[in-house]
Amino acid sequence: MHELLESSQVVINTLIQSLLHDYKYDASQIKTDAESLEHWGKDWTKHFAPAASAIVFPKSTEQVQSIVLLANEHNIVLTPSGGRTGLSAGAVAANGEIVVSMDKMNHIGQFYPADRMVEVEAGVITQQLQQFADSKDLYYPVDFASAGSSQIGGNIGTNAGGIKVIRYGMTRQWIMGLTVVTGKGDILHLNRGMVKNATGYDLRQLFIGSEGTLGLVTHAQIKLERQPQDLNVMVLGMDSFNDVMNVLAAFQAKIDLTAFEFFDGVAIDKLMAHGQVQEPFESRTKFYTLLEFETPYEPIMDKAMAIFEDCMEQGWVVDGVMSQNITQAGELWKLREYISETISVFTPYKNDVSVLISHVPEFIEQIDHIVSSKYPDFEVCWFGHIGDGNLHLNILKPENMSKDDFFAECQIVNKYVFETVQKYGGSVSAEHGMGMTKKPYLHYSRSETEIDYLREVKKVFDPNNIMNRGKIFDIK
Amino acid sequence: MHELLESSQVVINTLIQSLLHDYKYDASQIKTDAESLEHWGKDWTKHFAPAASAIVFPKSTEQVQSIVLLANEHNIVLTPSGGRTGLSAGAVAANGEIVVSMDKMNHIGQFYPADRMVEVEAGVITQQLQQFADSKDLYYPVDFASAGSSQIGGNIGTNAGGIKVIRYGMTRQWIMGLTVVTGKGDILHLNRGMVKNATGYDLRQLFIGSEGTLGLVTHAQIKLERQPQDLNVMVLGMDSFNDVMNVLAAFQAKIDLTAFEFFDGVAIDKLMAHGQVQEPFESRTKFYTLLEFETPYEPIMDKAMAIFEDCMEQGWVVDGVMSQNITQAGELWKLREYISETISVFTPYKNDVSVLISHVPEFIEQIDHIVSSKYPDFEVCWFGHIGDGNLHLNILKPENMSKDDFFAECQIVNKYVFETVQKYGGSVSAEHGMGMTKKPYLHYSRSETEIDYLREVKKVFDPNNIMNRGKIFDIK
Repeated sequence: MHELLESSQVVINTLIQSLLHDYKYDASQIKTDAESLEHWGKDWTKHFAPAASAIVFPKSTEQVQSIVLLANEHNIVLTPSGGRTGLSAGAVAANGEIVVSMDKMNHIGQFYPADRMVEVEAGVITQQLQQFADSKDLYYPVDFASAGSSQIGGNIGTNAGGIKVIRYGMTRQWIMGLTVVTGKGDILHLNRGMVKNATGYDLRQLFIGSEGTLGLVTHAQIKLERQPQDLNVMVLGMDSFNDVMNVLAAFQAKIDLTAFEFFDGVAIDKLMAHGQVQEPFESRTKFYTLLEFETPYEPIMDKAMAIFEDCMEQGWVVDGVMSQNITQAGELWKLREYISETISVFTPYKNDVSVLISHVPEFIEQIDHIVSSKYPDFEVCWFGHIGDGNLHLNILKPENMSKDDFFAECQIVNKYVFETVQKYGGSVSAEHGMGMTKKPYLHYSRSETEIDYLREVKKVFDPNNIMNRGKIFDIK
Repeated sequence: MHELLESSQVVINTLIQSLLHDYKYDASQIKTDAESLEHWGKDWTKHFAPAASAIVFPKSTEQVQSIVLLANEHNIVLTPSGGRTGLSAGAVAANGEIVVSMDKMNHIGQFYPADRMVEVEAGVITQQLQQFADSKDLYYPVDFASAGSSQIGGNIGTNAGGIKVIRYGMTRQWIMGLTVVTGKGDILHLNRGMVKNATGYDLRQLFIGSEGTLGLVTHAQIKLERQPQDLNVMVLGMDSFNDVMNVLAAFQAKIDLTAFEFFDGVAIDKLMAHGQVQEPFESRTKFYTLLEFETPYEPIMDKAMAIFEDCMEQGWVVDGVMSQNITQAGELWKLREYISETISVFTPYKNDVSVLISHVPEFIEQIDHIVSSKYPDFEVCWFGHIGDGNLHLNILKPENMSKDDFFAECQIVNKYVFETVQKYGGSVSAEHGMGMTKKPYLHYSRSETEIDYLREVKKVFDPNNIMNRGKIFDIK
């Protein structure tokens, strides 16, 4: 064992020397100190101990290519690393991998005003792109809690979603072109920014959501959108989940929603106990939704009020509040945004699942039933993006239970949760990716035949399995 | 040669007998008469003579699977066939293929109101889906000239675009799930209708735009949209192409356009000579654009008028007209819609190319220069979807030139056109697909390395190359 490790250390050293002497890497682009190996070896998950062999920081597509070619030659596994905000251990190097960090490829390139498009390097921070768009009086609509740290390359790797998907779609919808280095070491320029391009299979789409298992994304061409105008926020309280669905249908039929978020009474309880946010209205209800929409024209406000009143009359909505200005809109958003942080003290076990919107009410009911009957001591907190059928299920740790015992129990709950996901033809990972934490559950969402096709597709781009080995699925 | 044909006829007969006796096909599902072979053996292109061996009409995914398994067993090539409205010979059976027509799989299935989604069989006509959406007070936004005949399966195979892409995107954006039979004969249910699903490579995206070369699509889950409200149309005349771009930018900054179409003075000349459409306004200009946008609120109209007036003041727009009601809007659309039919008497040689919107003015100028300097007798008519960078280049046949001579000359022009496309990193087929007519030009848009990856991806799904062999690219 010790000898094996030593010999692999020799290989790593040979590879590093080659980067320095043959491929124009300078010393600052390679780190092997313990602190760096720990820092760049993990993401936001804590289930796997990082054990990277080295961290490299390429500055160009060619430098990325050189490390891929060397990794093939020496049979070293590479783990691509962005902002390390992943929630499925997709960017964790737990098995002696070399981490390829995109931190030094963080430049925003050419802007094409007529195309509303900008070229960025993969290491650009999501928020940096949002701010660039803003400076051009445009908008990059993919937004989520970790946007201040996550990188575009990582967003592409997981096809990141977030809070504006109901209107603007996932990351996929904004990626007009990609430059990638495949696992074989080829540089491909995919789609090159075009809206329409019917010249054979759209390989760009394969790389989106591939979690670094096919190759590394080095550049992306990203579409921007006009800025939203006069965003208005409503928070409504309901006592049955069917009413949540009725409200969604009523608004969606007449107003273009930019968000339709959901959280339950448990979330509100914890938020109020925490004391950072104001109670939205006097009555406390079982379910809450946050709606957002543009109101550039006065009649939209009137229309929204009319729908709201109708929902009250129908008995669907118990109470509600609407923002009167941008500050109030921001305050209302906190109700949704602060949930994750607030419940983090309860060491929540998180699942990120998705089913058809039509199946959401039944699905929630069945999961609630499973957890409350099998685990009466566990408290469940639901929130998520109902408008997309995406639910975040958070099981909260009872105070008197050890973390390890709790996690072990939750792994057992997982089986029941994912069986229910499977029953409804749903997804065991809606927007967090599979990485290592969800890998054992892939078969609940993809058939064995389909997984075999995934393996074969990977072989086309990465025949030696050097790209993020052991993520999403294992090669047989 | 004769013997070979005879022996292959024996194989075809064996296969047909197996369908009838082992796989529950009835006699009406198989046609081998000369008229049927001619009818279902071709699409709207006329460059290749149809030479199908048989036409089969499966009624279920399982029946599709049976023909694929038999085709593998007997090494028979299958050509999937939809509405046969293709413009690149993607659905032409020119080499003894068995045509798999989806005509009998034309049912609209389950509708999911909360998801605004409907399941359809691949043989459903595009217009049939549009009408279904309308009956549910919803909208299927992919629309183009052949929507009354084309089938959803074919739309998916070419990732069809059309006249509303600037607002609603391509067919890809509306496909939430696919059931496919791969070239190996496996049935896969891809994505199953979910908005968010981060469980490995999105194989659905590979099948969209694959022109039947990976397998056959049998069912699709299709997203619908709310209906557009109070559509308004403007037609504007300009004398320089830069002004067209200025007008696009001016409107797009403030109004959500549902269309921004373009045609040139040559198109107007031909339209007026043909006499079916009214002159939009007195002055004749070099370029025309048709803008469409929703006006559910009065202030949008005021805004549009203000932008129009500003464009006049800037000297970008020479003259313009706006629809006052839905009938007038329809009349103005005819200016764009009738072009294809009107110029068809000039036996146009059509190219369907795309470049970044930012490159469109230079691109048009260079192509005009090439054609006018090298082929002074050729008249060029441009129209297309400027808002997407998609241009239809039509070279009109001089009266005194034979059709064969003209086509031969146009093939020579192609080289210059596609070299210019390549120079701007554009697409040799924006929305028509590659099929057989564009296959020789694939390398102008995809690198040789990339084409090798396309070949390898095909092998994963169709190792025996029985699916639409010879389309898009050849297997080495």
